[in-house]
Amino acid sequence: MPTTSSAPGKVYLFGEHAVVYGEPAVPCAIERRASVTVRERDDDRLRVSADDLTLDGFTVEYGVDGGSPDVDVPTPLIEAAMGYVDASVAAARDAAGRPQAGFDVEIESDIPLGAGLGSSAAVVVAAVDAATRELGVELAPEEVAEYAYEVEYEVQEGEASRADTFCSAMGGAVRVEGDACETLDAPDLPFVVGYDGASHDTGALVAGVRALKDEYDFAEDTVEAIGDLVRQGEDALAEGDVAELGRLMDFNHGLLSALGVSARSLDEMVWAARDAGASGAKLTGAGGGGCIVALDAGDSTETALSLTPTCAEAFRASLAHEGVRAE
Amino acid sequence: MPTTSSAPGKVYLFGEHAVVYGEPAVPCAIERRASVTVRERDDDRLRVSADDLTLDGFTVEYGVDGGSPDVDVPTPLIEAAMGYVDASVAAARDAAGRPQAGFDVEIESDIPLGAGLGSSAAVVVAAVDAATRELGVELAPEEVAEYAYEVEYEVQEGEASRADTFCSAMGGAVRVEGDACETLDAPDLPFVVGYDGASHDTGALVAGVRALKDEYDFAEDTVEAIGDLVRQGEDALAEGDVAELGRLMDFNHGLLSALGVSARSLDEMVWAARDAGASGAKLTGAGGGGCIVALDAGDSTETALSLTPTCAEAFRASLAHEGVRAE
Repeated sequence: MPTTSSAPGKVYLFGEHAVVYGEPAVPCAIERRASVTVRERDDDRLRVSADDLTLDGFTVEYGVDGGSPDVDVPTPLIEAAMGYVDASVAAARDAAGRPQAGFDVEIESDIPLGAGLGSSAAVVVAAVDAATRELGVELAPEEVAEYAYEVEYEVQEGEASRADTFCSAMGGAVRVEGDACETLDAPDLPFVVGYDGASHDTGALVAGVRALKDEYDFAEDTVEAIGDLVRQGEDALAEGDVAELGRLMDFNHGLLSALGVSARSLDEMVWAARDAGASGAKLTGAGGGGCIVALDAGDSTETALSLTPTCAEAFRASLAHEGVRAE
Repeated sequence: MPTTSSAPGKVYLFGEHAVVYGEPAVPCAIERRASVTVRERDDDRLRVSADDLTLDGFTVEYGVDGGSPDVDVPTPLIEAAMGYVDASVAAARDAAGRPQAGFDVEIESDIPLGAGLGSSAAVVVAAVDAATRELGVELAPEEVAEYAYEVEYEVQEGEASRADTFCSAMGGAVRVEGDACETLDAPDLPFVVGYDGASHDTGALVAGVRALKDEYDFAEDTVEAIGDLVRQGEDALAEGDVAELGRLMDFNHGLLSALGVSARSLDEMVWAARDAGASGAKLTGAGGGGCIVALDAGDSTETALSLTPTCAEAFRASLAHEGVRAE
């Protein structure tokens, strides 16, 4: 009897990158979901297939003791995705006390990979939830978030924050500062996303910011300024003040640009959104390429983005009030 | 017997805007000059003409007691220029103890107006120098700088720093922090300038940053981060480390973007320069439109900028070792 769970992607209203250093961040879950179906096997092997990770379909099969995987489409992106699935399954085995359990795992996602929309966290959250339920264990979303964080922490070699996984598990808008995670009352914000079609190397971008921060006091100041901005943004969010949220998003984008994580394509989309009348616009996620998020209740920003040469896809994204769920 | 003086424009290697709040800045004089010719009149009237301020020629004539000027081409830009000339002449009258002196003043400049290259400071410095010399008073460049600062302070209603006028009067690279001004030993840096053809309203841009800084702690942090960056940049300048200067310029541009003073055209030129292999690139001056400055010893950046749709003019600018001078 297969078990399916899904979990949403997210945009960062504020605070990506700085959150790695203990500053607060406010990600918001959006209605683009990753869905993971798990079926327990008779042996201890793990077989993973994915049909729609904006990649060609691929299948990977390997044993619990790390027999070399037989990968149909070996790319660094798939290897990264496999790392997440592998660790998610290990977490579920651990949660259920079933270290030798084998699974067939099938992943479907309409969240572009490595684009700043939290695809990996959504896959990990859904995989942990589905695999534990398949083994008869029901975890609360907070517990799924905790396991999923440990997975990201392990795969990303310590450079993970709780923000992505907590947001994906809980849904809605959340606030994460170090180990303190809470859900926020947030109005439905008029998110518009622009995607340049590129994927980034999150690890390299995080490492680049760390190098700047280690070398320069003013880079550390910049990270702290992002933290102060997030604290200000919480008030604007509580008040549903879209104009103020937009101003703060614009400022946040500049600080991220200073930290070297914007890209020409992202800046072009940000300006297209602003010129179209968006209240504000910023890159979301690790940067370097991927997505921007803007606020605009009307159609102008989505239209302007869809006409921007560096924008491969523009879409409206509503707040996902539900986090991880059984399907 | 007419007297002619000229003074150079400048680019900001680092620190514009933050310098208004007492942080250090490092402007560098460049070989684009404003030239002012002054001839004493028999009456107390002031007649100003300009042929080449990237405007159509204009002539303004008015008396010492403020008879309404007869302006051929009345635009806000000309009115602003007139304010500077008017105050410069008043400073010269004061320096020479000749409050009733009248002048014919002719301005020529190859520095675009309101584009971030210090056109107003260059005109003021050259005008103060020429008018005082016409009245038989020889001022040291430091004294010209002082009078010129007072002119800018008056015309800009207190929102002036000493950086522009000191740099234009002294030439070369200078460091200004509050009232402390010094010249720096600087290598010839491979400046490339891209100009979008637009002019900005410096006063409005400065006021915008002040409003952000007054409202938000993180904007004040950002201004302080620029100051820390400038202090770091001084070491790189002393060492002639172009790669490091470029990294810091990129960071400085991001912080200025956060403060809301970049523009779509400026960001496009900055990315064109970076993609062409410039060591770094940033807006220079007040922002909002106008110029960017990049570092590139080769031809790639100038070529790339000249092919960028938002770039009206790209040119190499060498350091002007001489500041204000008699012509």
